[in-house]
Parts: sequence; structure tokens; C-alpha cells
Amino acid sequence: MLTIGNKTFKSRLLLGTGKYPSFDIQKEAVRVSESEILTFAVRRMNIFEPSQPNFLEQLDLSKYTLLPNTAGAKTAEEAVRIAKLAKVSGLCDMVKVEIIGCDRSLLPDPVETLRATEMLLNEGFIVLPYTSDDVVLARKLCEMGAHAIMPGASPIGSGRGILNPLNLSFIIEQSTVPVIIDAGIGSPKDAAYAMELGADAVLLNTAVSEAYDPVKMAKAMRLSIDAGRLGFEAGRMPKRDYAVASSPMVGLVPN
Amino acid sequence: MLTIGNKTFKSRLLLGTGKYPSFDIQKEAVRVSESEILTFAVRRMNIFEPSQPNFLEQLDLSKYTLLPNTAGAKTAEEAVRIAKLAKVSGLCDMVKVEIIGCDRSLLPDPVETLRATEMLLNEGFIVLPYTSDDVVLARKLCEMGAHAIMPGASPIGSGRGILNPLNLSFIIEQSTVPVIIDAGIGSPKDAAYAMELGADAVLLNTAVSEAYDPVKMAKAMRLSIDAGRLGFEAGRMPKRDYAVASSPMVGLVPN
Amino acid sequence: MLTIGNKTFKSRLLLGTGKYPSFDIQKEAVRVSESEILTFAVRRMNIFEPSQPNFLEQLDLSKYTLLPNTAGAKTAEEAVRIAKLAKVSGLCDMVKVEIIGCDRSLLPDPVETLRATEMLLNEGFIVLPYTSDDVVLARKLCEMGAHAIMPGASPIGSGRGILNPLNLSFIIEQSTVPVIIDAGIGSPKDAAYAMELGADAVLLNTAVSEAYDPVKMAKAMRLSIDAGRLGFEAGRMPKRDYAVASSPMVGLVPN
Amino acid sequence: MLTIGNKTFKSRLLLGTGKYPSFDIQKEAVRVSESEILTFAVRRMNIFEPSQPNFLEQLDLSKYTLLPNTAGAKTAEEAVRIAKLAKVSGLCDMVKVEIIGCDRSLLPDPVETLRATEMLLNEGFIVLPYTSDDVVLARKLCEMGAHAIMPGASPIGSGRGILNPLNLSFIIEQSTVPVIIDAGIGSPKDAAYAMELGADAVLLNTAVSEAYDPVKMAKAMRLSIDAGRLGFEAGRMPKRDYAVASSPMVGLVPN
Repeated sequence: MLTIGNKTFKSRLLLGTGKYPSFDIQKEAVRVSESEILTFAVRRMNIFEPSQPNFLEQLDLSKYTLLPNTAGAKTAEEAVRIAKLAKVSGLCDMVKVEIIGCDRSLLPDPVETLRATEMLLNEGFIVLPYTSDDVVLARKLCEMGAHAIMPGASPIGSGRGILNPLNLSFIIEQSTVPVIIDAGIGSPKDAAYAMELGADAVLLNTAVSEAYDPVKMAKAMRLSIDAGRLGFEAGRMPKRDYAVASSPMVGLVPN
Repeated sequence: MLTIGNKTFKSRLLLGTGKYPSFDIQKEAVRVSESEILTFAVRRMNIFEPSQPNFLEQLDLSKYTLLPNTAGAKTAEEAVRIAKLAKVSGLCDMVKVEIIGCDRSLLPDPVETLRATEMLLNEGFIVLPYTSDDVVLARKLCEMGAHAIMPGASPIGSGRGILNPLNLSFIIEQSTVPVIIDAGIGSPKDAAYAMELGADAVLLNTAVSEAYDPVKMAKAMRLSIDAGRLGFEAGRMPKRDYAVASSPMVGLVPN
Repeated sequence: MLTIGNKTFKSRLLLGTGKYPSFDIQKEAVRVSESEILTFAVRRMNIFEPSQPNFLEQLDLSKYTLLPNTAGAKTAEEAVRIAKLAKVSGLCDMVKVEIIGCDRSLLPDPVETLRATEMLLNEGFIVLPYTSDDVVLARKLCEMGAHAIMPGASPIGSGRGILNPLNLSFIIEQSTVPVIIDAGIGSPKDAAYAMELGADAVLLNTAVSEAYDPVKMAKAMRLSIDAGRLGFEAGRMPKRDYAVASSPMVGLVPN
Repeated sequence: MLTIGNKTFKSRLLLGTGKYPSFDIQKEAVRVSESEILTFAVRRMNIFEPSQPNFLEQLDLSKYTLLPNTAGAKTAEEAVRIAKLAKVSGLCDMVKVEIIGCDRSLLPDPVETLRATEMLLNEGFIVLPYTSDDVVLARKLCEMGAHAIMPGASPIGSGRGILNPLNLSFIIEQSTVPVIIDAGIGSPKDAAYAMELGADAVLLNTAVSEAYDPVKMAKAMRLSIDAGRLGFEAGRMPKRDYAVASSPMVGLVPN
């Protein structure tokens, strides 16, 4: 079970809701993913324009925890403002801090992320910051009281998988709150790898929404996360430099 | 569905039967793996010594296809002899050619593997050769009439996963028979990766039998193979060098 | 030529001075490395205990620029204090900010590193901060006025080479000051790779001092850095997924 | 020193002569590479059409050992015929066996390569077979009497570097003749890596001829091969999972 703040979830897959070919495909992908937490960019939502179509209307919201993110914010103050807008809409009290510091890589701004996390914690939010895989930064977010930390595997939308498993291992090892690997997951093996490293959950979006068949990929991701988690719990075999001869073959078959 | 010779299987996981902590754990691991094909070294079986314990007695053999391998053979002639011994036992008509050519790496002998495959095909066996990831060798085995080809991911028992995904991709692309990735799989992500590359199945043993909890790992492997297969069928997103900005954020929230 | 602050250097290899088997080996390794900048931990130097042996006495200091580092500091204030001690010794006006934030990984503290860099710039130092490969953090250090930035390839003393070449590429691409890859270089290929990515220089220590033959490795590193730099300048061939047939072979030899 | 057959060479870089922008650039690249062995496809040479321009005319042949290859051959018989054509031209008695078995990957045919090697050895040639990184195949070529073995790093012209360093390590460890890493080298770090693994030499072509500045890249490759060789001889530091704290910092500077 995954516990964030005072809520508990069976699923360890958090799904983003952007860039699907259609609302129908999105709805079905969400369903087969068995995700319980859906994330969305507040600034991309038409929550203040009721006349516009809105994917949230397509979903039975009683079944999901919504995790709005602050994408579009460049500073802590902007992130806080976006988070408050989401809260007053009544949809959620959790927020993913996402403050991009580089338009080219879409990598996060460590300083503004720290500041926004502190400010939002002081405002009583359940705060999940998206962060780089900087090990000490992740620890500071954890010590500050973040309810989970969300280090990226690789740049948002890149599909390059886990670039630095060593740093993620350090982050997981030291963390006292859930670690959710966020950004860069491109295929099921990447999600399984994140979970094998000991992550508590994975957040992904493009890997499903830009697959040729998003619904089938949503199911693949669900299975791979279960597989990776079980693999972590099962305790993998050691890696060896050289092959290990199997048990001796002594005279069982007449030569 | 996986078709080898004239048999069809729902499971894409072939499981080895060596090196489990106990017969009970082996039996349970086999059960949760949902494997339909079990492989074993003929020379390690007590099939000719009825007084000895034998894992095959523990299993309901009507539920499984047995795939004996020729481990211990150094030459084509030895492999053929071992295969015939297995056949006369009445347990099977399929055989995995395994002719090790290097005691240190346990990598296969390409020349003897080719010869044994040809000889066994002439004898009417269903033949599945274990081979290196040499692309042209794999094609020759395929052209010769092998019923499936089994390129290794990395050395037997090493748990190092897929060392050369490019070669495996070439082999899968060119093959007209099932490609079963064999040897070196260490954790669920490795199995998922093999399937994402387009392999038809995965054969593994040590990754399950030497896990801290083999039964749980058997389940993890089953799920990861399903995940990888679905991921392959779903068609993954492209990898990108640079992050792709999400859909434009235009004035949905007042600034 | 490498320019840091108002100084210019022919060599692109900065060498650390710790952990050599002997002063003689250190001296010879420094010589064949052709390094012009030597780095050392102020807190490890006996600069205030004239009765103790000191590697600096072994060297003709007129030939080298000394780059003291603040290893041992946990906060910006401690780093500043150490830097000032180095300055009053009269040996140098450059300083490498090194503030470790994790005893296990020896990875740097991003917040204290930013603070120390700002404080030391205000004091008039030539400041070179050691940093993680966090892309936005590196940009902030650059914008703040750091005279060079020193992102790590992998943890100090790990010898694991470049864990995240993508992040280093982003850092190099965006930087307006020299980028010196620092920490984690284990062998000549790692140093060459750093330079091929476009780094301006490499700082290393353990890879030379813990080699079986430090003097020979010092020479290997010098050559590999020249090779990598030339390779960067020469513009490498593209990587291809598939082989490219060479020029057509048309009837030059009678068939 | 590199010894092949009864010849000894100072340089460990074998250079291919195809696909240069011009004869002048080729000539200069060859010069700065300091290569002593030049390889070329017999079938691409105009050695039987004296009216055509020919790169060999541009070079002082007394300074180089020519290594013709059998590119274009699909069978052992064709390779032998091409080798004999080269020999009668009087240019060389060494030959690189190159028998491509896959037009898409340009990977070699193991069976025909073995046959051609045996046939050419029987004819008294100095034989250097280009082979995959199949470990047992390489050993067979060695045992057969090949004067050097040339396993590929990755497909010809792909520039992907070393795909399977483990297999190359096994090949190098077991070989009693020089191992020359051939094909796939893309940049100086790749060449350095091959040498660090213990290879005796590297053969490359496209990495130089398709660089933006082939002459500069030729020099980079020369340096990187020297660096990698020295690095191998120097004995690299161990890789560590975790950072190693440097020597203790005890009270050298007053706190």
C-alpha cells in the first residue's frame, strides 16, 4: 500500500492526463491503468471556463484522487498561486510542485522548488515536489516535510528511462517518505526498473498517451509496476562478472 | 500465443528447474509462474536412477511440456546422444541444444550447435538451439529449420540482463521462427526489455531460483513478461534527445 | 586554451593531490600529467604546521596555480572560513567550493554551495563550485558569476565515470563559463568522454593516485584529455541504428 | 609493440582508407594518425585499372604495411579468390577476412569466416579474420592459427562504440594472438575503451573519414589509443558502489 499524507492507495501508478488522442481513449486508458491518482496541469484545465470541454467531466471523480500540478510556474510565488486556485476549486488538497527552470530540458528549478514546498507546507497542503535526482536536494525536501518526493528519471516527455539509477538508489535509501519516480519513463521496462530500485510509485503520462495504442500501454504499465514491485520485494539474484557453473553433473547419465 | 513446432502455449515464460532451495519452493514457483514449458538438464536428472528423488515426480506432468536440454555436452555427437536418452524416457520430443564452448563464460559453441541442430532435425526432433547473439549464426539456425532460436542475453547465471539489445533486435527482425531470449535475465526489468524488443518468449532459471523469495520472483517474472509483450504490441513512444514541451498553456488561468 | 578568471592555461587537466603512495610518486605524476592547476583540501594541508611534511614543499610552486578546496565544510560559512584561511596563506586567490551534503555519496549540498559561491564572489575570490549535475543549479551558479562550474560525473572516489551524459550536455550547452567535469572519472575513456561532450576541462584525483601505476596513469589521462578535446573539435560521425553499406563495389575486380 | 605474423609495429591504430572527402585529406589523415597498417577493400581498388586514380598512388608505400580485406565476398571461396588477387598484385601477404553475412547489419558470417581462415592459412597467408564478438568463435579462429582476431565493437559504420565489453573481455583474456577491435568505433572514447579492456590494437575508418575534420579526428584517435593502452598498463582504480571518504581530516586547520 502506498500512503501519501493521510491517504492510502493500492495502485503504485500515478497517471498524467495530457496529450491523449481523445477523451474516450484517455478514459479507457485511465480505467485499465487501475490508477487511483490522476495528475493534471491546473493551467491547462478549463476549470474556470465551464463552457469548454474538460476531461474531468468524463471521469467519475469519486473514484480518483486528483493531483494538480503547478506546471507553468517559474517561481515559488506562481506555484503557490496556482495551487491555491486548484484548492478553491474544491477538487483536491494535494499538489505536485512543478517549477521548470529550463525550457529546453524542462528540468526543475531546485531553489524555487524548495521555496514553494516550504510555502505550501506552511499553507497546509499535502505537497509532492517534482525534483531532479540531486541527492541532497531530495533529502532537504524530505526533511522539510514534503509528503512524498518525485525525482525525475529523465527529462519530461523524453522517454529515455532512468539515466542515473545510482542517484535514485541513494534518494530511495535515505528517504523517510514515499519516492515517486516522475518524468522520463518511456516503456514498461523503465517502470519496472524504477520499482526494482525500491521506488514506492511511478508517475508517467507521455509513455501511455503517445503510445501507438495508449490503452494497451496503460495495461502494460500497470503490470510492469506490479512486476517491479514484486521483484524488489522478492530480492533479486546478485549480478556476476562471470558465469556460474550450475550444480555438478556427476554420472547421472551413463557416459 | 506462442507456437513451437505443432504446440501452442499461452505463457511466454519458459522456466528452468535447477538450483531451487527445495522441491516445495520449486513446485510453488513453477505454479505461480504459470509457465507451460519447463526445462531441465538431462544429465542432472535422476531419470535413470529411480531410487533418487526427482523434481519431475513432484509435478503433474500432464500440465507441462518438458524441454530437456543437453547441458554437459561439448560436441554435437554428445548432444545428440543426450537428446536421444531424453526421448526414450518418453517425457518429451522437444530438445534444447546447449553445447557450452567456454567453461569460464558458459557461452555456446557456434559450430557444434549448428551441427547438433542439423543432426537432431534429421532425427525428427523439435529443436530449440541455445546460441550466442551472433546475428548471422541465428539466421543460419533459422534457415536450417530450427523450431525456435534461443539467443542469450548475457552469460548463464550472470544476471547481467541484456548486454546487446541491438543484436537481439536484428535477430528478432530477421527470424521466421520464435525467438526465445535465454540466459542472463536477472530481474523483471530484463525480462520486460526482452519482450519489448519483440522476443516471443523468455527462458530463465537463476533469476527465480536464486532470488531471496523465489515464489514471489516467479510471479514478478510472469507479470513482467506480460507487461513487456503488451508494451511491444502497444508500440512505445519515441525517445527524444530533448524534452518536448507539453501542449501550450494559453490563458486558461488568469495570470 | 582554458581561461578561468584572468588566468589562461594550456592544460585542460586539473589534478588532485590526495592519496598518492608517496610524495615522490605524486611529484612525478604531477609532472607527467602536465597539469598547471593542482587542487588540495585546505583542511588536509599542514599549512599551519610548518614542522610537518607537506606536498607543496615538494613542488616548484612558481609552475603551478593552486586551487584549494573547502572539503570538510558542511555550511557556506565554514567554506568561506576555509577559503579565507587559504587566501591568507598567500598561496592562491582561486577556490573550489566543495560542501558535501551526504556522507554516504559525498554529493554536494546545492543550497550551501549556492550560498557559499555568492559569499565568496562578494569577497572577491575566483570561485569554482563543485556541484551535482542538476542543470538548473548549474545555470544559477553561472548566472551568479562563478568563474567556472564543476559538475560531478559520479560520486567522488567511485570511479564510475559519467553517469548522466545528457545532463552534462545540457550544462555545457548553456554555460557561459568553463565547465570542468569533476569527480567520478575512473579511467582514460571517462576523461575522453567528458571532453567529447564539450567540457572545457576535467578534474580528477583518485583515478591517478589509486591506479596501480599512478605515473603511467597520469600520462594516460593527459593524452585522453587531449584526445577527447580534439575529438570534440573534429566533430564526430553520427551514430546510426543500422550499418551503412560502404561505397558501391562495382566491377573493379573481374568476378 | 604490436606483432602480427613476423612483423612488428609501433602503432596500435590500423586505419581504413574508404570514404574520405578527398585524396588530400585522406593522405594527411593517414599521416597524422601515425598508422603503419592501412586497410582497403580489394574490390574497391582500381588495382587492375591503371588508368583510374588510386589512393595507393598517393602514398609512399614503403612506409606502410597494406592490409587488404575481402569485403564483397559472401563465401569462403570468394574471399580466397580476392585474397589471391591482392597477393599477385605484389602489395601484401597479409589479408583481413571480411565475409558479410547480413546486408542490413553488415555483421560477419561465422561459418564462412572460419572456412576462409582455414583455407587462407593453408595457402600461407598471414590471416586476420573480422568476426563478431562470439567468444567461442573467436577462440576457434585463434586455435586454428589466425595471426590476429578482429572482433567488432558494433556494426560497421554505425559509430555506436562497444556494445558488449564483457564479450570483448572474454575474447581478450583467452586469446593467444593479438586482438584488434574492428568496426563500430565512433569517437576517441570508444577507442580508448577498447584499449583499456586490453585489446592490442584498434581498426577504424568511418570515425575518421566521416568526422567533420578527418585530419583532426585522426590525431584524436592516435592519442586516445595511446591513452587507452597506457591506462590498461597502468591498472585502473576499482569501481565502487559508494563514495569513499578521503583521508581523515583531523585538526590540521583550527576549527
